[in-house]
Amino acid sequence: MRQWWRREDLQVRGDHLYFGGEEVEGLALSAGTPLYLYHGDRTVENIERLETALAGHALDYRLFYAVKSNRFMPLLTRLKTLGKCGVDVCSPGELILARQAGFREREISFTGTAVSDADLDCLQRHPDVWVNCDSLSSIRRLGSRCAGREIGLRINPGLGIGYATNELLRYSGSKTTKFGIYRQQFDHALELAASCDLEVKGLHFHTGCGYLDPQLPVFDEILGVCSWFADRVSGLEHVNIGGGLGVPLTAEDNPLDLERWCELLERHLGRRGLQVWIEPGDYIVRDAGMLVVQVNTVEEKESTIFVGVDGGFNVNMAPAFYRLPLEVIPCRQHGGDDDGAPSSPGAASRASASSSTAGGEVTIAGNINEALDILAENVHLPSVKEGDFLAFLNAGGYGASMSSDHCLRGGFLEYLL
Amino acid sequence: MRQWWRREDLQVRGDHLYFGGEEVEGLALSAGTPLYLYHGDRTVENIERLETALAGHALDYRLFYAVKSNRFMPLLTRLKTLGKCGVDVCSPGELILARQAGFREREISFTGTAVSDADLDCLQRHPDVWVNCDSLSSIRRLGSRCAGREIGLRINPGLGIGYATNELLRYSGSKTTKFGIYRQQFDHALELAASCDLEVKGLHFHTGCGYLDPQLPVFDEILGVCSWFADRVSGLEHVNIGGGLGVPLTAEDNPLDLERWCELLERHLGRRGLQVWIEPGDYIVRDAGMLVVQVNTVEEKESTIFVGVDGGFNVNMAPAFYRLPLEVIPCRQHGGDDDGAPSSPGAASRASASSSTAGGEVTIAGNINEALDILAENVHLPSVKEGDFLAFLNAGGYGASMSSDHCLRGGFLEYLL
Repeated sequence: MRQWWRREDLQVRGDHLYFGGEEVEGLALSAGTPLYLYHGDRTVENIERLETALAGHALDYRLFYAVKSNRFMPLLTRLKTLGKCGVDVCSPGELILARQAGFREREISFTGTAVSDADLDCLQRHPDVWVNCDSLSSIRRLGSRCAGREIGLRINPGLGIGYATNELLRYSGSKTTKFGIYRQQFDHALELAASCDLEVKGLHFHTGCGYLDPQLPVFDEILGVCSWFADRVSGLEHVNIGGGLGVPLTAEDNPLDLERWCELLERHLGRRGLQVWIEPGDYIVRDAGMLVVQVNTVEEKESTIFVGVDGGFNVNMAPAFYRLPLEVIPCRQHGGDDDGAPSSPGAASRASASSSTAGGEVTIAGNINEALDILAENVHLPSVKEGDFLAFLNAGGYGASMSSDHCLRGGFLEYLL
Repeated sequence: MRQWWRREDLQVRGDHLYFGGEEVEGLALSAGTPLYLYHGDRTVENIERLETALAGHALDYRLFYAVKSNRFMPLLTRLKTLGKCGVDVCSPGELILARQAGFREREISFTGTAVSDADLDCLQRHPDVWVNCDSLSSIRRLGSRCAGREIGLRINPGLGIGYATNELLRYSGSKTTKFGIYRQQFDHALELAASCDLEVKGLHFHTGCGYLDPQLPVFDEILGVCSWFADRVSGLEHVNIGGGLGVPLTAEDNPLDLERWCELLERHLGRRGLQVWIEPGDYIVRDAGMLVVQVNTVEEKESTIFVGVDGGFNVNMAPAFYRLPLEVIPCRQHGGDDDGAPSSPGAASRASASSSTAGGEVTIAGNINEALDILAENVHLPSVKEGDFLAFLNAGGYGASMSSDHCLRGGFLEYLL
């Protein structure tokens, strides 16, 4: 099994998986499962990699961590203590959470959608929080509360980037989406802001998520479209390019070429003298987190070997609902019984009798009574026994934050390592 | 607008929507939104309709309400007090919840999947709870704890029923699923149970969900397959046909013909002298519940009129993730400005300026920052203004129970009417 995900802080030593200096099976045994593990230092590395790349370019920038990707309080506090980023929030709840973790109002950027009057009342009570309005309606209603405030406008460039193979996460594109202000509305939006005594100092373009090198040409195009909007705003100070920076999810993915990405930002925005605001969420936390579950059932049904585990799609929605794979790694390998080559299902032991596999293709099933509740389909694993622990990598973003208590199976712990 | 959903307890009087004898807008104003409303009497009606149909046939039966569809405690307590059904649970959490609401162990049937040792320990502590084993692994592990216990076996008939147009909810069928014991495993399962001193007295066939008349021929076929399994179990006392009975979700759906459904049960099971266990969830609660949200944004973007509301896919997953429609009804109609005919988007007022529509096709968007967060697409609504309340019908099942706190937007109240 090629360990494409291997890092200094994530590796197999002997037969055991280590993450952030801790032996994962030991943590699972003491804490119980399901268990989310987050490695704080990895989030710092991710931020510093971004900073290093940006520092090499003529770019003034600010980072805002997207709280919705992972709101685990110890992690937020760690990031606040680090002091290298503010936070992007999308609801009053997240705003208050950020304040609880010590972020000052000036370090918080709010970008919501379908914002209610109650949401706007909360923003009124926090006058130094930056607000991006994503509709004319919200300009009008914010204006009636906060005359004189500087704001950003969330723009829909009419072009979008999703995960390469995934239409589900498309923020903007050929189909009209609910997000942002379209080109046809833009003059009207600027007039409306002016008439409400709101000063437009920023533009916000959230264009997609999970993008890697193959999507950079579209990103280039979108930044080009930004110019059309930026040209129309006198006194514009910054452009917020949203988040969306992806991380490799499979052996086939390469890490995003930050050098190329920075060049695009510099060419389109830096040379105009605009500050660039960036809201990475997944890029900071996805590969800094894993979900550990315990195998309770190994059983061959027809020609499929099912490995049943004690967590389901309610604990992590990514595989079932977004078709985003989470790489699966055993927390401990059983010495000698995996030759590294995928074996046919027929070569697997009679799982229904033995409660273990000899290694090969398996389907990992959660403990929710729904057909969709499959965590990984036809993945190659070395020998797996009931009682083993499995780690799902890249579970740090949009995992715990989207979990539900469906079937009252939603209990889990989170540890910051 | 044809009010196909109109019932004694759900209707428009004057301009106002009434549900369970209460004026819905008034409830929304006092409780706030999002708000789930459940009409207890409607759940009773649904149970009694089933009972009446079953009583006309030579059938001995037991009903078990599927807790996972809606675990709101007042509703569970109401059903317990009614005394006409037990409960079907799928996790230790649901089992304990049922006990808290007063259900006795003998009124509880547990049907889980990927059942852990901790789950089985809980079942061991509740010796009179009925357990259906859905794998050989769980037979073996239950047997090691509870020798002498009577059990059911969950069978996978290899045939499935989903919602007519929906592959996402397929429990069994041509593709191998994680559920139940397959034909090839069955002899082995019976031997294993016998060797563990477990007595197989029941068979469980959960075959799908949301079925209506068009799916009855497949249901017939599945019941036929049951015979193959039932013939192999000496001393079999009951067959559990799971839940899955559907309710109309759109104007095109007709209610399930319970008479035909009962005839199938009688022909395949009643004549064999087998008691029939039925686990309806959705059938009891789906049309007994609605989700009320408030409109905060009305805005035309390109040629789509978006109606933004204060609840998103995290509060109800059905439209976004299961592509199951929830019928939308304004809680109060604005007199005279809807002619009842769909108007083209062009006929709508300039929504971005006016914050209301003249009536016509709209797309209802939630307040979560994800493109998927659309609650209804291209639905016809009479005039809608910001501040209005909208009711999503058929939200009583798998709504609140699957909700998450994504973006910290998960707050809502539930009322039992």
